[in-house]
Amino acid sequence: MSPTIGVFDSGFGGLTVLRELLRIIPGSHYVYLGDTARLPYGSKSRETVVRYALSSARFLEEHGAELLVTACNTATALALEDLQEALPIPVIGVVDPGTRAATRACGDAGNGERPGVLVLATQATVDSHAYARSCEAAGLLATEKACPLLVPLIEEGWGSEGSREEMCEVTSQVLRIYLREALESTSNARAVLLGCTHYPLLRSAIEQTLSELGHPIPVIDSAQATAEAVAEALAARNLVRDDVHDRCEFFATDSVAKFARLGTRFLGSPVENVQLIDLGG
Amino acid sequence: MSPTIGVFDSGFGGLTVLRELLRIIPGSHYVYLGDTARLPYGSKSRETVVRYALSSARFLEEHGAELLVTACNTATALALEDLQEALPIPVIGVVDPGTRAATRACGDAGNGERPGVLVLATQATVDSHAYARSCEAAGLLATEKACPLLVPLIEEGWGSEGSREEMCEVTSQVLRIYLREALESTSNARAVLLGCTHYPLLRSAIEQTLSELGHPIPVIDSAQATAEAVAEALAARNLVRDDVHDRCEFFATDSVAKFARLGTRFLGSPVENVQLIDLGG
Repeated sequence: MSPTIGVFDSGFGGLTVLRELLRIIPGSHYVYLGDTARLPYGSKSRETVVRYALSSARFLEEHGAELLVTACNTATALALEDLQEALPIPVIGVVDPGTRAATRACGDAGNGERPGVLVLATQATVDSHAYARSCEAAGLLATEKACPLLVPLIEEGWGSEGSREEMCEVTSQVLRIYLREALESTSNARAVLLGCTHYPLLRSAIEQTLSELGHPIPVIDSAQATAEAVAEALAARNLVRDDVHDRCEFFATDSVAKFARLGTRFLGSPVENVQLIDLGG
Repeated sequence: MSPTIGVFDSGFGGLTVLRELLRIIPGSHYVYLGDTARLPYGSKSRETVVRYALSSARFLEEHGAELLVTACNTATALALEDLQEALPIPVIGVVDPGTRAATRACGDAGNGERPGVLVLATQATVDSHAYARSCEAAGLLATEKACPLLVPLIEEGWGSEGSREEMCEVTSQVLRIYLREALESTSNARAVLLGCTHYPLLRSAIEQTLSELGHPIPVIDSAQATAEAVAEALAARNLVRDDVHDRCEFFATDSVAKFARLGTRFLGSPVENVQLIDLGG
């Protein structure tokens, strides 16, 4: 029997994590939920995000998930402990794996100082300081920068390949504003950590802007490190997998047509047979 | 007794309507609900918007509203008829009043053609074609243009007075892209109608961009015309008002602190004593 792995996000960004899960742990049964009727989480309060995350997680557990991946930085930052307490299955978030990836990228500052890492995230994730705590525990010094306009720009496709030059220029200008502000408040950033699962779709634009600003440091995300953490947790629990083929089920709380259309960009392969569910509210 | 008037929106934009209500119908008791836990409505499906609008409207009716103003273009466009069927009180939306304001601004094309009006709105409002139908009934020819990035830009304050020049330049560039596309698809627009209650906060930037593009046509919104429609409905129903002072109660489904902070910009005067409510979900 292959294990059933539940993956949830407020919307589409978590599909960048599912993409890595499919690469690193093939032959599993994945159940993905995008809580699109209530997105975005990143601009909302802790109380509201915890409530939404709990109902999303419970749906996946009731749907057979033996392990849950909170593939959303905001939900991880604000609700991971609540989820771990409420659910009888292991719950893995994206913050600590992201920090682990940052540690590998930063190496040792070599002068007794903690290496600095610049974390780009939603307002709610920044306000929670979950990355500051996680990085401190790993010996890194995090500078957290909220970038609220990036998610809408990505969802509109204004930064992606194939979009018109004047639209990409808007995204570049927004990135210049955010990154210049962030770099002014930190002198020793050795890597940029993408603390929102939407942001990998802007990776090359972010790398280019960093170069233009004279800070060509590596840009890392938590997707691969999260998939590695899931593989370790499965091995530790002896949840073997022996299916030849992956199976993916997709659920969304709002328009399934929009989920299939936008989701395909995030997953990098077609998202099909999305089922609509109602979590109330 | 002064009448109790319920006003609801997905968030803050409806406060631009409340502002006009307070000016035109002072001495009333206003109960405002911003469904901030579930915003935005404008990117979501009809089914979800109807569900959210019904629960918001029912809250206000249970809270004593004798007349309901749907101060949200998306909710009006997608759910007005459902609300009017479900509630025992009059429900007034913002689309028909907006069209009436556009009719006044456009005048008569004079050559037998219908005057054209360019409607800027959310994706959901555009997809509903509520403005196309309303304008056609009024003898206007609407060109509907979705502008999904304007709400996030406004909520971040990137287009408002006092924001930094490079941030205003981003908003101007986004407006140039949207307005150039819209003007290319219509040859005879005589006015721009703001079909989202957020957009009045960008009125001067929109006017300036229209001038730069060589189309200095008037920019109108539905707030004043909606308040006039409410005054007519109150008079027709003999709902007199005799209080000297207005009373406003504010409710929100997410962070009350954020509601007070952002709301003050939309209302143009302090938003105080916001109460948190849970509509489920």
